[in-house]
Amino acid sequence: MPIHPGMPVYRNREEKRPAFAVTRDFDAQGAGVRETRVSLDTHTGTHVDAPLHLFPDGTGVDRLPLEALVGPCRVLDLTGVPGGIRAADLAPHGVRAGEFVLLKTRNSLREGFDPSFVYLTAGAAAFLAGRGVRGVGIDALGIERDQPGHPTHRTLLGRGIVVLEGLRLGTVPPGEYWLAALPLRLIGLDAAPARVVLVEMR
Amino acid sequence: MPIHPGMPVYRNREEKRPAFAVTRDFDAQGAGVRETRVSLDTHTGTHVDAPLHLFPDGTGVDRLPLEALVGPCRVLDLTGVPGGIRAADLAPHGVRAGEFVLLKTRNSLREGFDPSFVYLTAGAAAFLAGRGVRGVGIDALGIERDQPGHPTHRTLLGRGIVVLEGLRLGTVPPGEYWLAALPLRLIGLDAAPARVVLVEMR
Repeated sequence: MPIHPGMPVYRNREEKRPAFAVTRDFDAQGAGVRETRVSLDTHTGTHVDAPLHLFPDGTGVDRLPLEALVGPCRVLDLTGVPGGIRAADLAPHGVRAGEFVLLKTRNSLREGFDPSFVYLTAGAAAFLAGRGVRGVGIDALGIERDQPGHPTHRTLLGRGIVVLEGLRLGTVPPGEYWLAALPLRLIGLDAAPARVVLVEMR
Repeated sequence: MPIHPGMPVYRNREEKRPAFAVTRDFDAQGAGVRETRVSLDTHTGTHVDAPLHLFPDGTGVDRLPLEALVGPCRVLDLTGVPGGIRAADLAPHGVRAGEFVLLKTRNSLREGFDPSFVYLTAGAAAFLAGRGVRGVGIDALGIERDQPGHPTHRTLLGRGIVVLEGLRLGTVPPGEYWLAALPLRLIGLDAAPARVVLVEMR
């Protein structure tokens, strides 16, 4: 997701908007340099959640293993699912141990924050954890909504499965790719904004 | 570089330090979630400079082509150079068109900000630009120092060559790697913090 002050933020909460402030700038002749200060939430735009987001004694985002964040992945077509993704929606895709799956949903076709975004149900999270995936990504700012106690997050983060939120997959055909999902190395924090790219494998 | 409030910052300027503020936290029973607000400079830690850092009408960091930031690279051993890296220090390495070169210097052996850090001289920047490299990285918070008018930056950024600063290469043997240098997608800004990884090629 592009990061700027007018970008979509979770539930449109104003205090979650990024802010940019120029701290140093060119003179009237165009000499000098520009520098900027940025203020943003750890859960801004495309980002990686750490266990510390849900568990007081959980691992911070700087401790996530690079081996989980970089490597093969598969984009699954779930654009036919209208609300919560269930285990039955995932079963036909033949998810395997060690896979990083990115869930392409109709969220990727919309701009702005949609309060009824497509999410991963607790049952589907348990299904993926049971298959032994190494990560799950989704094209919504949250991987779940309206589930008391956040069971989807707890199931995934409690097993050390990487959770990647805020992807944009509108132009990405389903299939296999090489993933680099690189969160800022923010020491001891609950999450971090990330730049995520897919490389086509030939 | 690890990002935290006590990390090294350019010339030890206090106003350049990152700040972390918890905005939401667990209750006394450990229920709920933690979220954090982060404030940091675009030139914090490992980061990518954009042409807009030096040129008022330059390209912002969000417009840098991913093809330049992801792909093969080579780490050059320049740990024998005490001050400014000159063209003569680079010539023996046989730099080729399209290469992304990472300059491993004695900066990687030190902690903290060293005001006499090893940098790339204007002459060496012209040499690399002449060879047609696609990017240059260095293990200092700046790629140059004490050169009036910032000629190293101007030569590289003026030709669309990616400038990667604040690398940590202490544990990285010189040689060939696959690079993923991913800056946050900050729209219209002069630079962005980046997570950078090297993958060993077999």
